[in-house]
Amino acid sequence: MSETRTLASYVATSRFDQVPPDVRHEALRALVNYMGCALGGAADPAVDIAMRALGPYSGPPTAAVLGRAERLDPLHASLMNGISAHVHDFDDTTPQNYIHPSSPVASALFAYASAHPVSGLDFVHAFILGFEAESRVANAVYPAHYDAGWHITGTAGTFGSATAIGRLLGLPVDRMVWAIGLAATQAAGLREMFGSMGKPFHPGRAAQNGYMAALLAEAGFTAGERGIEGPRGFAAVQASQADLSKIGADLGVDFNLRRNTYKPYPCGIVNHPAIEAAIHLHREHRLKPGAIRAVRLRVAPLVLDLCNQQGITRGLQGKFSVYHGAAVGLLRGKARLEEYTDAAVNDPQIARVRESTSAVGDPSLTEDQAHVEVELADRRTVGHMIEQSLGNVHRPLSDDQLVEKFRDQAALALPGDRANAVLRLCWRMQDLADMRELTAAAVPETTSSQGRPGNVIGSAV
Amino acid sequence: MSETRTLASYVATSRFDQVPPDVRHEALRALVNYMGCALGGAADPAVDIAMRALGPYSGPPTAAVLGRAERLDPLHASLMNGISAHVHDFDDTTPQNYIHPSSPVASALFAYASAHPVSGLDFVHAFILGFEAESRVANAVYPAHYDAGWHITGTAGTFGSATAIGRLLGLPVDRMVWAIGLAATQAAGLREMFGSMGKPFHPGRAAQNGYMAALLAEAGFTAGERGIEGPRGFAAVQASQADLSKIGADLGVDFNLRRNTYKPYPCGIVNHPAIEAAIHLHREHRLKPGAIRAVRLRVAPLVLDLCNQQGITRGLQGKFSVYHGAAVGLLRGKARLEEYTDAAVNDPQIARVRESTSAVGDPSLTEDQAHVEVELADRRTVGHMIEQSLGNVHRPLSDDQLVEKFRDQAALALPGDRANAVLRLCWRMQDLADMRELTAAAVPETTSSQGRPGNVIGSAV
Repeated sequence: MSETRTLASYVATSRFDQVPPDVRHEALRALVNYMGCALGGAADPAVDIAMRALGPYSGPPTAAVLGRAERLDPLHASLMNGISAHVHDFDDTTPQNYIHPSSPVASALFAYASAHPVSGLDFVHAFILGFEAESRVANAVYPAHYDAGWHITGTAGTFGSATAIGRLLGLPVDRMVWAIGLAATQAAGLREMFGSMGKPFHPGRAAQNGYMAALLAEAGFTAGERGIEGPRGFAAVQASQADLSKIGADLGVDFNLRRNTYKPYPCGIVNHPAIEAAIHLHREHRLKPGAIRAVRLRVAPLVLDLCNQQGITRGLQGKFSVYHGAAVGLLRGKARLEEYTDAAVNDPQIARVRESTSAVGDPSLTEDQAHVEVELADRRTVGHMIEQSLGNVHRPLSDDQLVEKFRDQAALALPGDRANAVLRLCWRMQDLADMRELTAAAVPETTSSQGRPGNVIGSAV
Repeated sequence: MSETRTLASYVATSRFDQVPPDVRHEALRALVNYMGCALGGAADPAVDIAMRALGPYSGPPTAAVLGRAERLDPLHASLMNGISAHVHDFDDTTPQNYIHPSSPVASALFAYASAHPVSGLDFVHAFILGFEAESRVANAVYPAHYDAGWHITGTAGTFGSATAIGRLLGLPVDRMVWAIGLAATQAAGLREMFGSMGKPFHPGRAAQNGYMAALLAEAGFTAGERGIEGPRGFAAVQASQADLSKIGADLGVDFNLRRNTYKPYPCGIVNHPAIEAAIHLHREHRLKPGAIRAVRLRVAPLVLDLCNQQGITRGLQGKFSVYHGAAVGLLRGKARLEEYTDAAVNDPQIARVRESTSAVGDPSLTEDQAHVEVELADRRTVGHMIEQSLGNVHRPLSDDQLVEKFRDQAALALPGDRANAVLRLCWRMQDLADMRELTAAAVPETTSSQGRPGNVIGSAV
């Protein structure tokens, strides 16, 4: 059986009772994390602009946009959800293929489930299947595909949303094959867009395009039946090397959700160990701004390749400055969204500590390790070493830490009681008879964010 | 200046009086040919299915779908126009890059112009600019890009529609750069889809996605600014070899429209010389079915690679059977859409002659050449050699031949008087104050084609 048909057949015929309990729980964790990110990004200018540009082209507004009061058709809602969820680069990652796996799949599913009756159980199941399908496609073409310049979240993500929506539509195997083909032929997204709104556009379009692929296939729109493995198919055309055996190996037994990770800090992941060491020192020594004379970082060399920005003035630059991460960790004991606003970057105390910070690359350190040393005003020094940073696959965020991250972001879109309700409903999603109970809670009465200037997080936070 | 900015700047600032008269006339010929193809394909099941699947998701129906009574939002109308125009594989081709250049650009422009006031002159100008932009992108990456398995009409076409719509929106250069970036990051379409509805889906999506890119850029949605030439941009990622100098060379002086070609027959282009020779023999000798004992073809070897189908039963197979082409040429003296229906393929007289036809590949022949020899019932033989087949760049269809092709196709969607009106308005497009005069004429009162079974051309034809 061809790889495309193998995958189509699995997605079309899987039973939820065949999914192990740990995978189901990880799906809920991924969805809590996703929902927080979508709510946290919903007020971003990228979403405002996309709403302004495309809202007039929306079909009947049957679907909710997470974190926003406006309603759109489900395809446009998928797009907006995907932009929101990725715009802060705070959504999940599977390090074995660098995909942000939840955003393309969940963005389409929440749009669908806000417009149609779907039980929580069917929703979680479709999410697990879409996550698995896109991960297997990604695993098969990684690293050649990513190294060539493809934003794998945009490309592989399209397979995830197509199969997840195809599952909810009840596509038979033959039509699931077409849905996968129509996903393959829309798989796009260039890393050249990084640093622009084009980046979060990718998971948004993956969600929307995969959803559309499933709708077309359902109606009988035909596609090439070897979309993944054919001689002119996705793998051959978009990767110089591929291992197609990864599509079908241990399918239904091994689940990629088990290797999913969640960022504790909304910035370049290689900064995380230095930030964590700095937060540790803040807690241990209750450092006051005036007490810090100089800060010395020892980090993996890659950190200085990617996150070496000094002399910065904008919040987005802070995300790629290990110095800024160390400074906010030391002074505030946290690195949340508020630490990456323009205001935080221009805070004089943070700027002084940031500019007193130096770093050396140490090849003996992994990217999960960092050492931070602080020279105090009285010339004493204190230091801390992180051996394995929080949020990686060996030291995952706890459920409580995911909740804290969720609340931090949800507050940008929803009043506290509503955010709490969304959180409660997320954890007990599998018991919901109709997911609209959740999607209705995940939108505010009004969206106050529109027209807000670039990269400013609401002052209420 | 970067290639992306060079192209953006040219499209944003070109003046119509700088376009040479021969290029303007070729644009009209391309648009007459395009309009015929869009009308001829509008009743195809691929369009019916796409309408059924996606119509419920359409925004306010402000735009016309060429050849159909239903109205959609302009983005969805762009998609449907593109599917219609390419579904019979009868639209134009620029042989230097194998792109079908008009369908992505004109499909978006007609949708736009049916919903907004646009003068014919601005329309033709935008078409010329979009055609030029996509052709230059295609030339830069051809042949490596096409050989790798990309359907270049889907990929490069996105640049064409983005720039053409961007021009009508009056985008300044900086936003045109973003529109090109957002086109680059959506450029998709795999040759693996050939032989399915996925193929005409490509120019449809190119039209729709490019249109969307222009709308987003207009509203301020940012993109990478080196979408074409950046290290992770379209050329680097989607072609193992590229010549970026082709983007800017002789821009505004040399026009790719001058190298555009129009198919006389709705089938694989390599069959064309054999068909033409057969039509010549039909006219010269008034061959009756019973008079033909055997037919022997001498063709370029590639013909037997691509179009060697015997024992066929479906119209679509006929398009890839040089034997069928020769048979209908000999018996009917023509090879129009009616010669590629299921009925024509199963016509006993045509089938008998087709099955009495043999072919040999002759490496001394080019793909524009063929020799057809007929052995008559009385054992005499007659033959004809085509040295340079009709429709290639050295022997283009005349305006009258384009009109004949147009009428043949338009009759599938419109009553004769309305088809004539559309044709008249196409030729004098540059005089129209508002293109809606034309787009209003190009739709029927009702669309009778829906639900029609696969690949059957209306019996009225």
